[in-house]
Amino acid sequence: MAPAITLAAEAPKLSAADTGFMLICSALVMLMTPGLAFFYGGMVRVKSTLNMLMMSFISLGIVTILWVLYGFSMAFGADKGSVVGWTSDFVGFSGIDKMALWDGYTIPVFVFAVFQLMFAIITPALISGALADRVKFSAWAVFLVLWATVVYFPVAHWVWGSGGWAFDLGVIDFAGGTAVHINAGAAALGVILVIGKRVGFKKDPMRPHSLPLVMLGAGLLWFGWFGFNAGSWLGNGDGVGALMFVNTQVATAAAMLAWLAYEKIRHGAFTTLGAASGAVAGLVAITPSGGAVSPLGAIAVGVIAGVLCAMAVGLKYKFGYDDSLDVVGVHMVGGIVGSLLIGFFASGKGQSDVEGLFYGGGLDQFWKQCAGVFGVLAYSLIASAILAFLLDKTLGMRVTEDEEVSGIDQAEHAETAYDFSGAGGGVVGTAAPALAAKQSKKVDA
Amino acid sequence: MAPAITLAAEAPKLSAADTGFMLICSALVMLMTPGLAFFYGGMVRVKSTLNMLMMSFISLGIVTILWVLYGFSMAFGADKGSVVGWTSDFVGFSGIDKMALWDGYTIPVFVFAVFQLMFAIITPALISGALADRVKFSAWAVFLVLWATVVYFPVAHWVWGSGGWAFDLGVIDFAGGTAVHINAGAAALGVILVIGKRVGFKKDPMRPHSLPLVMLGAGLLWFGWFGFNAGSWLGNGDGVGALMFVNTQVATAAAMLAWLAYEKIRHGAFTTLGAASGAVAGLVAITPSGGAVSPLGAIAVGVIAGVLCAMAVGLKYKFGYDDSLDVVGVHMVGGIVGSLLIGFFASGKGQSDVEGLFYGGGLDQFWKQCAGVFGVLAYSLIASAILAFLLDKTLGMRVTEDEEVSGIDQAEHAETAYDFSGAGGGVVGTAAPALAAKQSKKVDA
Amino acid sequence: MAPAITLAAEAPKLSAADTGFMLICSALVMLMTPGLAFFYGGMVRVKSTLNMLMMSFISLGIVTILWVLYGFSMAFGADKGSVVGWTSDFVGFSGIDKMALWDGYTIPVFVFAVFQLMFAIITPALISGALADRVKFSAWAVFLVLWATVVYFPVAHWVWGSGGWAFDLGVIDFAGGTAVHINAGAAALGVILVIGKRVGFKKDPMRPHSLPLVMLGAGLLWFGWFGFNAGSWLGNGDGVGALMFVNTQVATAAAMLAWLAYEKIRHGAFTTLGAASGAVAGLVAITPSGGAVSPLGAIAVGVIAGVLCAMAVGLKYKFGYDDSLDVVGVHMVGGIVGSLLIGFFASGKGQSDVEGLFYGGGLDQFWKQCAGVFGVLAYSLIASAILAFLLDKTLGMRVTEDEEVSGIDQAEHAETAYDFSGAGGGVVGTAAPALAAKQSKKVDA
Repeated sequence: MAPAITLAAEAPKLSAADTGFMLICSALVMLMTPGLAFFYGGMVRVKSTLNMLMMSFISLGIVTILWVLYGFSMAFGADKGSVVGWTSDFVGFSGIDKMALWDGYTIPVFVFAVFQLMFAIITPALISGALADRVKFSAWAVFLVLWATVVYFPVAHWVWGSGGWAFDLGVIDFAGGTAVHINAGAAALGVILVIGKRVGFKKDPMRPHSLPLVMLGAGLLWFGWFGFNAGSWLGNGDGVGALMFVNTQVATAAAMLAWLAYEKIRHGAFTTLGAASGAVAGLVAITPSGGAVSPLGAIAVGVIAGVLCAMAVGLKYKFGYDDSLDVVGVHMVGGIVGSLLIGFFASGKGQSDVEGLFYGGGLDQFWKQCAGVFGVLAYSLIASAILAFLLDKTLGMRVTEDEEVSGIDQAEHAETAYDFSGAGGGVVGTAAPALAAKQSKKVDA
Repeated sequence: MAPAITLAAEAPKLSAADTGFMLICSALVMLMTPGLAFFYGGMVRVKSTLNMLMMSFISLGIVTILWVLYGFSMAFGADKGSVVGWTSDFVGFSGIDKMALWDGYTIPVFVFAVFQLMFAIITPALISGALADRVKFSAWAVFLVLWATVVYFPVAHWVWGSGGWAFDLGVIDFAGGTAVHINAGAAALGVILVIGKRVGFKKDPMRPHSLPLVMLGAGLLWFGWFGFNAGSWLGNGDGVGALMFVNTQVATAAAMLAWLAYEKIRHGAFTTLGAASGAVAGLVAITPSGGAVSPLGAIAVGVIAGVLCAMAVGLKYKFGYDDSLDVVGVHMVGGIVGSLLIGFFASGKGQSDVEGLFYGGGLDQFWKQCAGVFGVLAYSLIASAILAFLLDKTLGMRVTEDEEVSGIDQAEHAETAYDFSGAGGGVVGTAAPALAAKQSKKVDA
Repeated sequence: MAPAITLAAEAPKLSAADTGFMLICSALVMLMTPGLAFFYGGMVRVKSTLNMLMMSFISLGIVTILWVLYGFSMAFGADKGSVVGWTSDFVGFSGIDKMALWDGYTIPVFVFAVFQLMFAIITPALISGALADRVKFSAWAVFLVLWATVVYFPVAHWVWGSGGWAFDLGVIDFAGGTAVHINAGAAALGVILVIGKRVGFKKDPMRPHSLPLVMLGAGLLWFGWFGFNAGSWLGNGDGVGALMFVNTQVATAAAMLAWLAYEKIRHGAFTTLGAASGAVAGLVAITPSGGAVSPLGAIAVGVIAGVLCAMAVGLKYKFGYDDSLDVVGVHMVGGIVGSLLIGFFASGKGQSDVEGLFYGGGLDQFWKQCAGVFGVLAYSLIASAILAFLLDKTLGMRVTEDEEVSGIDQAEHAETAYDFSGAGGGVVGTAAPALAAKQSKKVDA
């Protein structure tokens, strides 16, 4: 992410090129949230598929409204004490003129605001993967409101808002390693430590009910992530966004291969789930670092993230926390890996001339990265746990055990994901029409 | 939609920025038709899934060819009597030079033509949702040809063509509230009044066979709609397209929340289908209005559309018309809501200085909007009913009752959507290999 | 594809418009590989779905790394003897400055490199459709490395690299009719002649297990192909990319209709699979030719490709080669059709003033096209067969017959695509709760 406010020698003008690019990038990032819904939705058992989808989709609804009302102001308004922003013109977007440019940039404020909105939407949605099967939908909706307000908006300000403490310290986070991924991963950990495990954790593995749906999610995430990452430079007047784009592809590929290799050695097979998880781990790790490293550095970031995240997802069984779909293992760990590796691999030829340890730059940047990483991690973990605790004591966070076992989709949404019971035998095909007819009769009976 | 032809103080030049943006927007709008296919295809029972998909996909084929041959000329050629256009150079696209710019704009004629083509494709595809289970595929193909020719091409001219009566009257329709959504919704109503209900209407609810497929469709529609709406300004030289983009996101979010709230209060659950339907209702309503209202106004448009459309989809049971997948309830009603609300919420700070009633502008614009809304609605309803009647009396519109009951996919396409009968027990998973083996044996027997 | 290196009267400057456009196009082309995975994955039986997905996804991993290490250098480095390129600065991307422009163009080298990377990824992935059910995943991974190195990188140089023999000869291949489609199709033929048929070929038809998944793949391919084709002009400073975009849509529509008409006449039904296959045939055929022909010419290209490819897919049963998902029939034949038709339909008003036979230009260009087509075809066919032979004799290309029959997903990936066994009766829906409960109990037992 480029600095939120900079001083330009001469006032920049609206660039149709950058404006159009950023609008398309915003659409790409928007698509990531449905992509995430499918990625998570395919990984759970059939009985909680819809709940998983809805936990993401509802974020598109709730966070958008909060953002217009006060979220954008808190995240990107004028700094108040290095911890939060506020600009009353941003409230309700009511003081934003359609021609006003984001300070120092070539794009309208509206464009910056809507691009950033898409980040604010997906970040809490990421958390939902840790909560599969067991959280009341209404409690989740309230949690979204509170978490966005108390955690995301301030943390975005810290990292990307002019005057935010991490921003001023010089922490590098191009597109959200700290503000998005560590933030969501630590929050997931905080919440699950409070609400506990699903029924049957360990004993009853979370076997994906549809790996094609998982791969669809992974494909859409990968696609949208180009907007997320390359768009974070806010324009293409120079080659930095392009470098970020290249590195996004490279690190993702490397992480996918690394995860698959690790899994083949440890578990004896190249799994589809491993390919998808590895790709996401690479995308996460390059998110903070892709503007700072070279393409060869991106390979290193990807390989390291792929292996470490593949190792990290096993920890939940060792330590007994139910990170159902590996939000902690992939997003928190991947975010930490990517953020800290900047301290080693920053080439000085990307977004700035900051050099990491391996490029002759000492450990200065590494310590800054540590501050950003652990500051965000600690705040998000603690604040999220407190929010979950308060909600659990008031509304109650969990559905009943009966509802959980028989399926949260029916209990909370009065629906089931699939219904193949129609006449016509569509499911078993034309090859066995007699059987099909018999079966459909049986099912309809 | 900006005026089709304007006079510029100095001749505009080709803008690579606007051209590139509009090409990407065209691709986004193209993707909406497959998105619609999945949205509708997931909502029907498994036995008519493929027919639902094909009714949309075939529009991509047929309307494209019509558009090149004469549709673009009819819609955007030189005005003939305020009702239709014609420019012989547009016929077969044969007189269009690759460097010629669309009058008054910075993009080639080819770019404008292909962007508008995508609108012409999805509009008749929208109608298909009302006709689930029961229409001959060949009759649908012929209907597409006739409807595009007799209804869509002229109506697009009325609303967006220089010299069209609605255009000249000053009706505001940024991206297709009248020409696309009211037009399609009224056509759906006209056709179903002629062809009647499916077998088992009321008694046998249309339970979606795959809600993940519905959500995929909703996600792709939402994504593509940014191109549909923001692209309709034809460039980013100012901030109007960006405002439209912001409002698209905001109204969609608001309508999704409003629909879910309504449904929770009335029916006791937050359903996935409600979230998807609410989002589409918001997208529809902001389509005509998003260039004219403020983001707070977009919240109002979204909330009103979400609630009114949620109420409207119940009317089919009351009045007994089989609007199978709620094309009338969502697209016609949503289009009316969005188009008329411009008369109240136009802020004067968006695409023009026209102000609605709540912004001190009186009811002038409201009456204009009424003229556009009811003119398009009445023409489309009547003309579509006549076309359906003629086709029904000649080719016959409906499949036989037997075909309908046993499934239109097999009858019309000689296929079934799914076939899980393969050996290997893929459907039931690795956890129960013995059972899987047994089952697959049984199925293969 | 525009010439790789040209001399400009004055040095071009970085264009934010073209850079942004090309980054988005790169993302679109990236999405085609997941799209292809779904297109192929839906067409196979449920027991080999995941393997089909993984054969495409792994190309995203492997080819990306090869491209950074040496592929880009081999394809687009300085010419060595008209057969291959090499520029040491491209190795590891280590000598590429983020601000350096691709010679003669307005975009950074990184942008050109990543756009071309996406082509290098999808081309070998296309081959995988011919190999359904029967190839060891590890052998496929090694094949990818060898084939990219020995076939794709050199052939891309021949066709698009300055100094490549086909490029210098004046062969027109706008976006990859030879380098991508004929190349992949001929390779598929070479490999299957070596490795043989799947168990049950002819007797046991490859009935698609999920046509909605096939249509999703087709939709994403169509969408991404706009980036593939229009992006190949590398910018929008003139109207050529826009013409290519228009022709892409037009030929695809025409080919879909032509395939459906052929199939209705020959087999009596309009199938979903036919619509998807016809669309892809049109996309393939317009890929080389869409910059050279007029929109009416694009209709002709589409119709011819649709019919010829529909005829060609039946040849496998006649000649007994197991082109499982019609890679030869659609990509090789479609690529040949599109490439050769340039010799007849080039209008002289598109990418250059070259005119085909029907536009008064004689047969000159046709002979050039023949040289390109058959040069690429012969080399790819022979080289690919040799690679497959060597791999088969060393690693072994095929899984055992037992593994093939019981399902390659379990054998190679230790997973199954779907698992609907969860409690809650999600699959059969709420209408039959008693049955659902009974069934789920049975399955869980």
